[in-house]
This record gives sequence, C-alpha cells and structure tokens, in this order.
Amino acid sequence: MSTRKSAWRNGWIWTGAAGLAAMAFIAPIAKADPAAQLDFVLNTFAFLVWGALIMWMCAGFTMLESGSVRTKNASVICLKNIGLYAIAGITFYLVGYNLMYVDVGNIIGTLGFGYGPSAAEIALLDAVGSEAGEAAIAAAAAAAAENGYSVMSDWFFQMVFVATTASIVSGALAERVRLWSFFLFTAILTAVIYPIVGAWTWGGGWLSQMGFSDFAGSTIVHSTGGWAALAGALVVGPRLGKFRPDGTTKITPPSNVPAVALGVFILWLGWFGFNGGSQLALGGVENAVGMSIVLVNTNLAAGAGVVAALVLSRPLLKRVDLLAVLNGAIAGLVSITAGPDVLPHSVALLIGAVGGGICVIGIKLLEILRIDDVVGAVPAHLLAGIWGTLAVCIAGGYSFGVQLLGVAAVGAFVFSASWLVWMLIEKTIGARVSKTVEELGQDVAELGIEAYPEFVLMPPRD
Amino acid sequence: MSTRKSAWRNGWIWTGAAGLAAMAFIAPIAKADPAAQLDFVLNTFAFLVWGALIMWMCAGFTMLESGSVRTKNASVICLKNIGLYAIAGITFYLVGYNLMYVDVGNIIGTLGFGYGPSAAEIALLDAVGSEAGEAAIAAAAAAAAENGYSVMSDWFFQMVFVATTASIVSGALAERVRLWSFFLFTAILTAVIYPIVGAWTWGGGWLSQMGFSDFAGSTIVHSTGGWAALAGALVVGPRLGKFRPDGTTKITPPSNVPAVALGVFILWLGWFGFNGGSQLALGGVENAVGMSIVLVNTNLAAGAGVVAALVLSRPLLKRVDLLAVLNGAIAGLVSITAGPDVLPHSVALLIGAVGGGICVIGIKLLEILRIDDVVGAVPAHLLAGIWGTLAVCIAGGYSFGVQLLGVAAVGAFVFSASWLVWMLIEKTIGARVSKTVEELGQDVAELGIEAYPEFVLMPPRD
Amino acid sequence: MSTRKSAWRNGWIWTGAAGLAAMAFIAPIAKADPAAQLDFVLNTFAFLVWGALIMWMCAGFTMLESGSVRTKNASVICLKNIGLYAIAGITFYLVGYNLMYVDVGNIIGTLGFGYGPSAAEIALLDAVGSEAGEAAIAAAAAAAAENGYSVMSDWFFQMVFVATTASIVSGALAERVRLWSFFLFTAILTAVIYPIVGAWTWGGGWLSQMGFSDFAGSTIVHSTGGWAALAGALVVGPRLGKFRPDGTTKITPPSNVPAVALGVFILWLGWFGFNGGSQLALGGVENAVGMSIVLVNTNLAAGAGVVAALVLSRPLLKRVDLLAVLNGAIAGLVSITAGPDVLPHSVALLIGAVGGGICVIGIKLLEILRIDDVVGAVPAHLLAGIWGTLAVCIAGGYSFGVQLLGVAAVGAFVFSASWLVWMLIEKTIGARVSKTVEELGQDVAELGIEAYPEFVLMPPRD
Repeated sequence: MSTRKSAWRNGWIWTGAAGLAAMAFIAPIAKADPAAQLDFVLNTFAFLVWGALIMWMCAGFTMLESGSVRTKNASVICLKNIGLYAIAGITFYLVGYNLMYVDVGNIIGTLGFGYGPSAAEIALLDAVGSEAGEAAIAAAAAAAAENGYSVMSDWFFQMVFVATTASIVSGALAERVRLWSFFLFTAILTAVIYPIVGAWTWGGGWLSQMGFSDFAGSTIVHSTGGWAALAGALVVGPRLGKFRPDGTTKITPPSNVPAVALGVFILWLGWFGFNGGSQLALGGVENAVGMSIVLVNTNLAAGAGVVAALVLSRPLLKRVDLLAVLNGAIAGLVSITAGPDVLPHSVALLIGAVGGGICVIGIKLLEILRIDDVVGAVPAHLLAGIWGTLAVCIAGGYSFGVQLLGVAAVGAFVFSASWLVWMLIEKTIGARVSKTVEELGQDVAELGIEAYPEFVLMPPRD
Repeated sequence: MSTRKSAWRNGWIWTGAAGLAAMAFIAPIAKADPAAQLDFVLNTFAFLVWGALIMWMCAGFTMLESGSVRTKNASVICLKNIGLYAIAGITFYLVGYNLMYVDVGNIIGTLGFGYGPSAAEIALLDAVGSEAGEAAIAAAAAAAAENGYSVMSDWFFQMVFVATTASIVSGALAERVRLWSFFLFTAILTAVIYPIVGAWTWGGGWLSQMGFSDFAGSTIVHSTGGWAALAGALVVGPRLGKFRPDGTTKITPPSNVPAVALGVFILWLGWFGFNGGSQLALGGVENAVGMSIVLVNTNLAAGAGVVAALVLSRPLLKRVDLLAVLNGAIAGLVSITAGPDVLPHSVALLIGAVGGGICVIGIKLLEILRIDDVVGAVPAHLLAGIWGTLAVCIAGGYSFGVQLLGVAAVGAFVFSASWLVWMLIEKTIGARVSKTVEELGQDVAELGIEAYPEFVLMPPRD
Repeated sequence: MSTRKSAWRNGWIWTGAAGLAAMAFIAPIAKADPAAQLDFVLNTFAFLVWGALIMWMCAGFTMLESGSVRTKNASVICLKNIGLYAIAGITFYLVGYNLMYVDVGNIIGTLGFGYGPSAAEIALLDAVGSEAGEAAIAAAAAAAAENGYSVMSDWFFQMVFVATTASIVSGALAERVRLWSFFLFTAILTAVIYPIVGAWTWGGGWLSQMGFSDFAGSTIVHSTGGWAALAGALVVGPRLGKFRPDGTTKITPPSNVPAVALGVFILWLGWFGFNGGSQLALGGVENAVGMSIVLVNTNLAAGAGVVAALVLSRPLLKRVDLLAVLNGAIAGLVSITAGPDVLPHSVALLIGAVGGGICVIGIKLLEILRIDDVVGAVPAHLLAGIWGTLAVCIAGGYSFGVQLLGVAAVGAFVFSASWLVWMLIEKTIGARVSKTVEELGQDVAELGIEAYPEFVLMPPRD
C-alpha cells in the first residue's frame, strides 16, 4: 500500500542521510534477530530481481520505438534510448534520489550529492572483511537489518523507475527532436522534475500525507512521462507533413512490426517487476500473497486491454489495428499500476479493458487535436495513467477527491515544468532538427549511421 | 515428482473452492510456524519469478514464428501471438483453472467462474490492512501458510503453461488460418481441452492415479499443443503451392533468420522457468537441489539436441540446416521436460540428442506425408514430447505401459477434440482465409498493416 | 570477495569428487541447522536465477553480432552462437568443470569425466523419494546443506561464464572463419584453455594464492575471450578489402542497428546476473548488501561508459558514433567486473568512464594496427578487462604487481595457447573460408540459408 511505501521510505531517511560516514559504534545491546535478517535478505533480493526486469523495459521501449519510427530514424532512437538509460542512472545517483527521498523535507533539499550504503551496512562489510569475531559481525548484521532491506537495492529499484519515465518521452518526440536537446531534457526530468513528484508522494510529502495512493506509479511514473511527452510534443510540433492543410492525417505506419511486438512483450514481462516489486517487501506471508495478487492483476488487466483494443479498433479505427492492440496491452498495464494490490481480479479485468478502450479513443483524439505522438505514449501512458489512478477508488477506502487532486497537481507541475524546459531548450540550442535533417532522416544527418544500410528502402508512402 | 505435484494440488482444492468468501474465523490455536511461513514465501517467489520467465516464452514463439513466415504474414502472426496470450490468461481465469484443479472431481465440473486468493489469505490481508494486533496477524499468517504457497502464485504459474500450449498451435497453422478462427480455437483449447488433460494428470485425475508421470509437461503441454496443431493442419490444409502436384515440395525459408534465432534463445531461457519452476517448491534443501538438477538437465538436453541436429542434418537434409539446429534445441528441451528431476545428467544428454534426431527425421516425415507445419511444431513439440514422456522410464520406477497409455489417451482426446472444433469452425465461420487473402498475405488483406512497409521485398522464390 | 570465492570452491572439491557414488552413511550426529539450510536454499536460488540471466547474454551476443555483420553472414553467425552455447555446456560438463575446480590440484587433472550432485544430495533425494522417516530426511538435508549451496547450481552458474568467454570470440572473427573450425576452437577453449585460467584463479590455484583478485572475471572471462579472439584475428586475418593497400580502411557498418542495440541491452541485463551472482551467496545480510552494491556499481559503470563514449566519439572518431556508444556500455561493464564489490559508487562511475574511453581509443588503435575485429571485442572485452583488473587497486588492499602479473600470465597463456590452436586448425582443416565463400557470404555458401531472403539487398558500399 502506498502509505506504507512512503512510511518505509521515511523510516530510513535518517540512515540514508548518514551516507558513507563511518558508524560510531554498534550498539552492544543489538541482538541478532534471525527473522528480521531473513526478511532483509528476501526484501533486498526481490528489489534486485524485479529491478533487473524493470531495466529490461528500456529495451522494450527501444524495440517498440525503433520499430515504430521510419527506418531513416531508427538508429538515432536506439542511441536516445541507451543514452537516456545511462543518463537517468547517473543523474538519479548524483541528485535525483536525494531530492526524492532524503532531502525531501527541505522543499528543494540540501542536495547531498551521491548516495551510498548506510553506515550500518558499511560497518558490517568492514567487520566481515576484517574477520572480526562472530559476535561483532552478528551485531553489525543485526544493526544493518533494522532498515528492512539493503539501502542500495532500493536505490537500484527506484532508479529503473525514473528510467521508465524518461523512456516514455523519447517515443512521443521521435523523428524530429534533436539528440542533445533530448538528452538535456532527460537530465532535467530525471534529476529534478520526476524526483519532485516522487517527493510529494512516495517520498512522504504532502500528497502522500493527504492519502493519495499510487501503488506502482500510474500517475507518478506513467502520467509524469506522458505529461512531459505532451509538453515536448506541443513545443516541438508535429513531424513535417503529418497533418496536412486539408485536415487529413498522413498515416505513418511502423517500419518494423515484429520489433514493435517484441517491445510490447518486453514491457509486459518487465511490468511483473514494475508492479510485483512495488510490493516493496517479500519477507512475510502477507507480502508473498500480495505480490502474487499484484502479478495476476497485472496480467489480467493487460490481457483485457488487448481484447478491448482488438474488439474496439474495428468500429473505432475501421480495422483490426495491431498497433492499437499492442498499445492496448500497455494501456491495460498502465491502468492497473495504481492499484493492483487492492483490486479484485474481476475488477482488474474491467480496469484493463477500459484502459485499452481509452487508449484507442485517445489515439483518435490526438489525431483530431493534431498532436503528433509517434508511438501513442500520451494515450497509453498519460490517459490510461489518469484512469488507473482514479480507478483505485473502486476498491473503497480511497478518496476520489484526493486521487483527482494528485492527478491534477502532478499534471500541472510536470506539464508546466516540462513545457518551460522545452521552451528554454527551443529558444537556446533548439529543440527540433532542421527541415533538411528531418527529411534526410536523423540517422544519416545526425549520426551518419543508417539503421539498415544494406536493405533497399523506399520512401514511406504519403 | 509428479505424484507430489498432483497431491499438492489436491490439497488446496478445498481452500480454492472457498473462493473469495470471508473466512469464518481463524482458529485461535493456530500458532506461528516460522519455517512453514518461510517455505510459503520461497515457494511463492519461485512460482512468480519462474512464471515470469515462462511468460517470456510467448515472446520467443512470436519471434520464432514472425521470422519463420513470409514477410507478408509477419504482422498477423504477431497479433495472433499477443492475442492468444491475452485470451489464454482470461479464459484460464474464468474457466480453465477451475476445470483443471478445483472442479476436477466433477467430470465437467461445477465451473465456478473466476478464481481468487484463499479465504485465509484474504483474512490475512484484512488483518494487516486493519492494523489488527500482532497476534491476530500472526495467526492469520499461520493459517494462510498452511497451503504451502500463495494460491494466486500457482494460478500465475499454471496460466503461463496454458499459454505455451496455445503458442504451439499458432506457428504450425501460420500463413493461412483466419485470425478470428484462430482466436476462437485458442479460447476453446485454453478453457476446456488443455484443462481436461490437466485434470487427468496434474489435477489428480485418473492418469495421475495410475502413476503417469510428466514432470513439466512433455505430454501435457507440448504434445497437447502438438496434437492440436496437427489436427488444425489437417483441417486447414497446406499453404497454396507448398506441395506441388509433381510430388516435390516448395521450400519456404524463414524471412528473418535472426528473429528465429532470437526466438529460440528466448524459449531456451524461458524453459529454465518452465522446468525449474515445476519443482513446485523452493523451501527445503531437497527442493533447491532438485531445482538445480532440473536446470542442468534442461540445459544439457537442449545442447545435445543442437549438436545432434547439427551432425544429423548434413546426411539427412543434405546440408547443415540452421532451422533443423534451432528446432533441435527446442526438441531437446521438450524431450527432457517429462523427467529432468529423475534422470542423471548423462542420460539427459542422450535424451536431448535423440530428441534432436527425432525432430530432424520428423521434419522430413511431415514433408513426405505432405502435412504443412510452418515452424516444425509437430516434430519439435509432439514427437519429441512423446519420446520424452516414454524416456522417463529410463530412470526406473515408472511403468512404460502407463506412460504409453498417457501418451495415447492424451493424444486421442486432444487430437479428436481439436479436430472436431477445427471442423466446426471450418463448417461455420471458416478456418482458412480465401485464396486471394493467402496470396496477398494476411497482413495487407486481413490487417492492413505490412510488417516491413519501407523495405523493398521480392516475392518468395518457388 | 574473490579469496572467499576460491576458498568456497575448494571447500567442496571433495564432495564433488565423490561424484554420483552413493554416500556410505549419513553421520547420525548431524543435526538440523535451519539457518544453514536456509542459506543453502537462498544461495542456490541466486545461482539459478542469476545464471539464467547470464545464459541470456548469449542471445545478446547473437543479436549484437548478427546485426553487426553484413547481411550475407547473418545466418551463420546465429548458428555459431547457438552452437557455441550448446558445445560450451557439453564440454564444460564432460571436462572443463572438473579441470577448473575438481582436479585443479593435479596440474592437468585426473579428468573425471562428467559431474553430478554430491553424494549427500543424492542421499537426501533418495531419502525423500523413499519416504524415509522425517528424522532421516532431516539428517540428510543437514548433511547436504553443509556445502552451502547445491553442487549443480554452481555448475550451472560456472557454465554460463564459459559460454560468455566463447561468445566473445565469435564476434571478432565473424564473416570469414569457417563454421566447423570455429566449433572446434570453441570446444578446446571451453574444455581446456578457459578452465586452466579458471583453475589458477577461482579454482584456488597459484594466482589465487598470490592474492590476485577478479571478482566476476574482467580478466578470467573477458580478457580470456579477448585474447583468444585476438589470436584468432591474427591467424585468420582481416576480411577481404577491409584494409586497402593505400592505407585506408573500408567502413563496414552494421547491417541491422536495432538488433545491435537490442544485443547491448540484453548484455547489460545479463550483467546484473554476471556480477550480482558472483557474490556467490545470498544468505546473510552481508551478502544481500554486497549484491546490491555490486548491481549499483555495475549499472553506474555501464552508464558512465555510455556517456564517455558519447562525449569522446565526437573528437576522436569525428562523429557521435552509436557503435562506439554501444561498445562503451560493454566496456564500462567489463571494466567494473573485476571489483564491483569493493569500489565506492563514485569510483565505479570513474572506472566505467575510463573503460568507455579506452574502448573508443582501442577501436581506433586496432584500425591503425590493421587488425580486423568485426564487433570491437578486443577493445571492449580485452582492453577494458585489463583496465578493470588493474583498477581494483584503487580500492586499496590489492597489490598492483599481483594484478599486473595476473593480467600478464593469463594473457601470455591464453594468447599463445589460442594462437597455437588456431595455427593448428589453419594448417589442417583450415581456419578461413575460401575467397569465393567470403565474397558470396557464408550464409549462401556454407549454409544455403539467407538471413533475409525476401528483402532486396544491395552490396555493402566500399
């Protein structure tokens, strides 16, 4: 539950703040608590295993996006994706995590740069390394175990979430945003914007204190990514020729459909880590039960999103639209992300199906509004994220008003901050590639590396 | 061991049947058993982690199949695969699981729709949520732990198995089966046919009671998928022009070999979950030892299947055939799936090698019989599955007659049921696309989305 | 820590040597130690889960390499990669593991072929299978647990390391080494060369006794692979036309960039298993803490490698070079692999960045030396591996001289042994394909299977 999430996190802020300093002493009265130590091990391992699966989602976004763009921009989107994951990890290490969890009480924070194991953990490793007596090691282990899990396993787990947020942006702005401008925005998003939203919620800030609930981040991760993408799409503008003066829209089909499908399967798999790991603990029967329920709901919602998009795409989009179906899976996953722990399975099916439907409608809506979102990130992540955050109230015990306030506050902040940053980038180094680069394709013009240099290609049809 | 598998499952049928109803009371005499609770956590986590890897096999089938078909059918095979995974999850939730494990004693079953955590688990979550006293929570945890693992973690684990079964069918029938007909068959296979086979065996039914042993499903999963595919292939018939009137066969090479190779690697990885997770428990030294042996045997058999196909493809198929080698890996994996827990490592090598050889011969055999199986699903899953199920007897303690009976009974039931369903579909909505659609390709004709729209393609050679 | 790594391994050589023989008796005084048994389960499970992720790296190399070569050689590189993984597993089972860990004291070893669970483990499984009394089972479990982890889980974990070593070679020699010659070299590398290096270090041999430290194999795995690749590249020679008589170099861009990017993401993910699993234990707070630190350092170093390559490729290679960036990730990962457990996070960033820089310079250097390494395996694995092994000394407590000695000894042995084997192959069956095969491409000439038969391709540009 989200309140527990922030409570836990608050609990170890103190230890975290102590940083790498040597711990003065290990309280001699600390006595080994095998159960606590075992929980520590299990909780930590769950963070690491599920976190690794979430990192894998970056590969999913890469495949989805490189398959969705035209071949002339497929290399640069690969570079953007591996670059954003690298940058997100570094900025979240240097600044973001501290802002989100450690210095959150200081509004902007004291910004202690970097982060590391707790003093107790370092004392434990020192004790083991120095082959101190068994009793000393046991005491150190007991002290370290009080945190409930290894400090850096949580950092790892949180880091892959911020990377997901950044991934959402790259797809929406593909084919026309400048490489270095995108990296600059990514750095700001992951160092500052996302961590501030996180501080309000999972960091124990005002939204959390009001009772706002977002289990694994329908709003905090997916809508945040979606709002940032929307702001960027508005500043950068649509691809050349996407929306014709006569009001019609140029169809820009994916250039490599199996790559898109692979990307969606990767995301679906990674989501088991995303939602399952957000149980934040494995030690204890209640956590194992909770994690299981979370995985089942996650899978059912995604499946329902697929089926809903499959059924709805025919009347709404005039064909069985594979891309709508693939986005339906993602929308189903985003929708259930806010409450997979508290919703019955049958409701998960419903929420995923509605999410899939919202996504299909959202794709149509963006077209009408003439907003160019290459991969459907806004429908699948932002709209489904809003729906999922509100749908938590179906479970009872949650205030619709507070959920709505959270959605609105995060939206207002992320959209306006992102819009400001994108505008500043646009006014300085420029957010968008030149017309020539866009026509040639970013691969040749910006990178000098074509994605498929030996394949004979034709220009995409108008 | 398989008997234990079904015994376990029978054990919690009662709890499962109690469904979502509130548990009347928690026996006050329940006392915390930390070891049982820990086993519960470990068993559950193993189900979830290995289950996630099995889900990944669906991506493997998707890559294998989309790379194997001609480019004009690559999009629709992606849609079929993501659709079948979604459908399998939903039908297995609504009907299949109950039929296989809960209502198995009632022949067709009372068919309680849907499934959920046990009453004890719900009581536990309620107790934690309501911040009941520690003693009450501990009592609830102890009661929930009696099941050995979280109810829904087992559901998750079983669900990904049924999805695998359905995946096998899509590859064999690629390039000519209608999209909606395939989805309809998938729904029936996953809701009824597979669960009945499962009820006979893992559900504790008559085959199980006779001593039939199939650790992770050489017969129950792979042969079932293979029989359903074979029935479909016979009803739907070969692709146009595949078998020429002059008795020769048109070679239909895969359109994207690296995608096929990726698919096989995904399957190999997923099989560690498939077989490793079928240990069904992690708590206890004997389970950890067993799971390790299972993974090693799985890997050795797959490797031996590769080497056997590599060596045999030259004399048998007149060349070092990469596809035979890739199918050899799968055949090795299928072969060991019935007994990776009871066979010594050296025997696993032998079984995998024979499986790889059977697959190479089977590919040739199907050609002679003029049965069109696009990806070699019948040789790799059905023939190797039969071999693997019988090969368990090498370990001693298993009746060859019972194993053979199991193979025959499952084969007779699944083949005839599948044949009937396929015939009904053929006679009503039609199982096969029109000649025009087949020639144009299903991507353009059924979906309107080409897999590689910017690439200049040539028609496959005759 | 690496000393512990070898100590552990030495510890169970005896049990391992006992092989599959029945254990004479279970000491009746053995009493259940729940904590040790739990550690056994956790350690084993960590080996299996992380090991599965490492196996996945083979898929990463396959994607990276099949995307890096020209389309006319993409099928054969897939075959080489799945074949090498199969072969490595079998040879390491038959010979390699015994040489590395069991018979290491006998210089060449007594070479007991094959390997299996310990006698204690077999006794335990027998006891469970025979439904012996609880006390007998408990005693057997306690005896088996003394080893600290399941014997075959360690075998599995070690096996995927040797496969990684072999994978490094295939990329460097792509597009001109003969299929069967490559398989022959793979068998020797994995059965003999790598295990000898391993016996010196992780097997507890002379380098280990001198204090050489290589946590997860910067030298033992990556440099070993790199040296073997370098020897092969020298014997086999560059691709036709790669280095022109006028001193210029033909650019040979990757034929499928998204496949290369996918490969790098797979490797990055797999590295969490590679380094995280090399903690070799999960039971105990100190191991969970250590594993977390390892994963964080692994990720930070990779990210820093990406950023360094991104920044440096512009001045050094005259463009933002995506391939340099992708190799930068790998170089960052290789660099941190020798000491992710003992280096602070900030130093991990530094080490990864320097590794990424070394890789960019190394790519340039190989060009100047006119050595043709298709995927940059030598810069990314060998050079970064040397750097990483020396960089461990930053942590203090390690002798620069010993680290340098280890680097030199492994290099001298692996390079000369590999060179000898490659020369013998060249003089007998031939290491390199004919000029005609190379020009036609190995796919058509050696396999008869094109990678992309329906796609219209053009010859790569000169």
